[in-house]
Amino acid sequence: MKGRSQPKPRARNALYAQSGGVTAVINATAAGVIEACRKHRGRIANLYAGRDGIVGALTEDLIDTSRESAATIRALKHTPSGAFGSARYKLKDLERDRARYERLIEVFRAHDIGYFFYNGGNDSMDTALKLSQLGAQTGYAVACIGIPKTVDNDLPVTDCCPGFGSVAKYVAVSTLEASLDVASMARTSTRVFILEVMGRHAGWIAAAGGLAARKAGDPPHIILFPEIAFDREKFLARVKQTVDVKGYCVIVASEGARDADGKFLSDMGTRDAFGHVQLGGVAPTLAQMIKQAHGYKYHWALADYLQRAARHVASKVDVEQAYAVGRAAVELALAGKNAVMPVIRRRSSKPYRWDISSVAIEAVANKEKMVPREFITADGFGITAAARRYLEPLIGGESYPPYENGIPAYATLKGARVRRRLSTTFTV
Amino acid sequence: MKGRSQPKPRARNALYAQSGGVTAVINATAAGVIEACRKHRGRIANLYAGRDGIVGALTEDLIDTSRESAATIRALKHTPSGAFGSARYKLKDLERDRARYERLIEVFRAHDIGYFFYNGGNDSMDTALKLSQLGAQTGYAVACIGIPKTVDNDLPVTDCCPGFGSVAKYVAVSTLEASLDVASMARTSTRVFILEVMGRHAGWIAAAGGLAARKAGDPPHIILFPEIAFDREKFLARVKQTVDVKGYCVIVASEGARDADGKFLSDMGTRDAFGHVQLGGVAPTLAQMIKQAHGYKYHWALADYLQRAARHVASKVDVEQAYAVGRAAVELALAGKNAVMPVIRRRSSKPYRWDISSVAIEAVANKEKMVPREFITADGFGITAAARRYLEPLIGGESYPPYENGIPAYATLKGARVRRRLSTTFTV
Repeated sequence: MKGRSQPKPRARNALYAQSGGVTAVINATAAGVIEACRKHRGRIANLYAGRDGIVGALTEDLIDTSRESAATIRALKHTPSGAFGSARYKLKDLERDRARYERLIEVFRAHDIGYFFYNGGNDSMDTALKLSQLGAQTGYAVACIGIPKTVDNDLPVTDCCPGFGSVAKYVAVSTLEASLDVASMARTSTRVFILEVMGRHAGWIAAAGGLAARKAGDPPHIILFPEIAFDREKFLARVKQTVDVKGYCVIVASEGARDADGKFLSDMGTRDAFGHVQLGGVAPTLAQMIKQAHGYKYHWALADYLQRAARHVASKVDVEQAYAVGRAAVELALAGKNAVMPVIRRRSSKPYRWDISSVAIEAVANKEKMVPREFITADGFGITAAARRYLEPLIGGESYPPYENGIPAYATLKGARVRRRLSTTFTV
Repeated sequence: MKGRSQPKPRARNALYAQSGGVTAVINATAAGVIEACRKHRGRIANLYAGRDGIVGALTEDLIDTSRESAATIRALKHTPSGAFGSARYKLKDLERDRARYERLIEVFRAHDIGYFFYNGGNDSMDTALKLSQLGAQTGYAVACIGIPKTVDNDLPVTDCCPGFGSVAKYVAVSTLEASLDVASMARTSTRVFILEVMGRHAGWIAAAGGLAARKAGDPPHIILFPEIAFDREKFLARVKQTVDVKGYCVIVASEGARDADGKFLSDMGTRDAFGHVQLGGVAPTLAQMIKQAHGYKYHWALADYLQRAARHVASKVDVEQAYAVGRAAVELALAGKNAVMPVIRRRSSKPYRWDISSVAIEAVANKEKMVPREFITADGFGITAAARRYLEPLIGGESYPPYENGIPAYATLKGARVRRRLSTTFTV
């Protein structure tokens, strides 16, 4: 990025937007961005946030973060989901979506946005990259900084992704607790329990289920990864063997589990009364398969959004990293960087030490990091010691929200709208 | 119970058994029983526990609790599920199941069991009652004390049931967190979220979802109770109205939701590929119904065992009550009571004050307490202020387990077996 024109030293405004599926800690990143901006008022005049992410930017529906108190911003650190609203809204390439990109530059220009912080996954990094390119082409100076966020943990370069550690902790804790439940009743009741978890492409979240085991042989007994082709006979044999030996069998299944032809398990078995394939159907498909083959009584759970929203059992490490990448994004912008993304760098696993570095967005955009084969046991059903070494630090430490009347006291924003400056409207 | 023959002052042994579906706090009750017995060694020589509950009692597979350290017993207070094993094993009436009852008395006699503590729900109270009757008939003196436990909260007389407060807290917290998730993305993604919760007969757990709302209009927007006949048109109209006004709709549905004819929603819609009705199918049935009528994108979660095993987010009040009923059971036995059950008595709601009283088991056995109509709003879709006054104290306070390497450090028992004294075996 050297040689690129630096933002002028005069104070300009900044825009922050959340993108894609929300997490338990994306608001901690928002807090990092906001608190860092507030420390640099001489350089960043106002920090706005897109309401519902990029949709708010396109429609000029911006939230004035300066109207939120310091206490509210602090409370964002313990508040899950996207406090400013997020969006599933992918911009395509510059040619096909030029009108949208130009609209964004128009809104940026109208509000003198000199810094754009885009907090999301692979797609969002691509958008940030293209915006910085269009800015350069059109002579509008805007530093576009990506900020990593995804429960899927599938961004490359960064050692891990904020949001993942907390869902990993949720899945590990839930697997442990459900396993104790099943173990205590297997003699006269449920023999097989299946927990279906997120991760359509990469099996990081399923792998985290393996952290429930303190020693070899502990549940979960089987993990199904998208990275390993599902083999029905081998799977059913392992279930039977486990029930024979342990009395019960606990399975953590990725929603992305698929067979050798790439066919998703969720598309195989369960259809609703109207003949439609059921979403999130991996667990019931497996349950029926087992019931048919072995006749075991089963139960299954589908954590769905509960897993990524579970701030009540967040990883302290994850919260700290989420905050740190937010703060680092502002520092990178103020250091004159453009089209970069802060990344988490692991310095050591035991004891766990990390710091923040940065990478050109190009190295990250539209790329996915799968669970490497050496993290999965030879039989394809578990995690290796190497995987544990990688994963365990990421769920380290507890970071509880304050409670009021029995439930967490999560932040609520005023969400005051910034006065519109454009007469044109834009329909998304 | 006055005038009944009192156990002789010489020390006799005691037996503790867990029964039915386990909870996040049933082991806290076990800790209460064990610690109270240890304080009264002069009266209670050894405390045994049935391995897998009543099944262990029938098969003479007894665990010697004296082999567990004081630290392990303390750790039971923060360990979910049934540490000694539980069972779904209902004894019928004395006539039809006489052999089993007599076998229990035979095992009791062989091990000089003078006190039997049975920790379960309605069915278990019935068993405890019958055992005490058979003891009286056959001249074998045994004090049978029931100890309440059920996530369903459906036992009468007692103000609440240990196990319920924690599942209620889990459901309230999860509903809150998932609602924030859906709210933040509804503009471009999921509009309707459904959380299916336990409670086949009584809607107490579903009602607890209502505690997620801090003020009127907050999610959940719809609660479906087994106590209120499901009306498809009214339901679909309310979903649409909610999405129109709020932009999204969060629903907490009891697995026991049913229509005016008593037909379970779970039996209506979803069938698997083999034509079998899917268990736990209320959420997907509702989701399909909404999709067909309104076309909204939906997500749903099925917490299943996660909800009742979730010791990581247990209610402090619930943990304390679970412990207290265990201790009280021992005190009742030592006071010469028989066929009684300790109950939780509410002294005041604000501030919440409670103590322990007791009731004759006859008043409890085989009876169910439903959610009263005045706890449900007139439209049938929410909880009233009276319900909130009742429910809120029960999820009060946090009681976190210790963590090690990112997951809770739950207790593991030695589970040492008591030497058999009978030559006969018994097949359950």
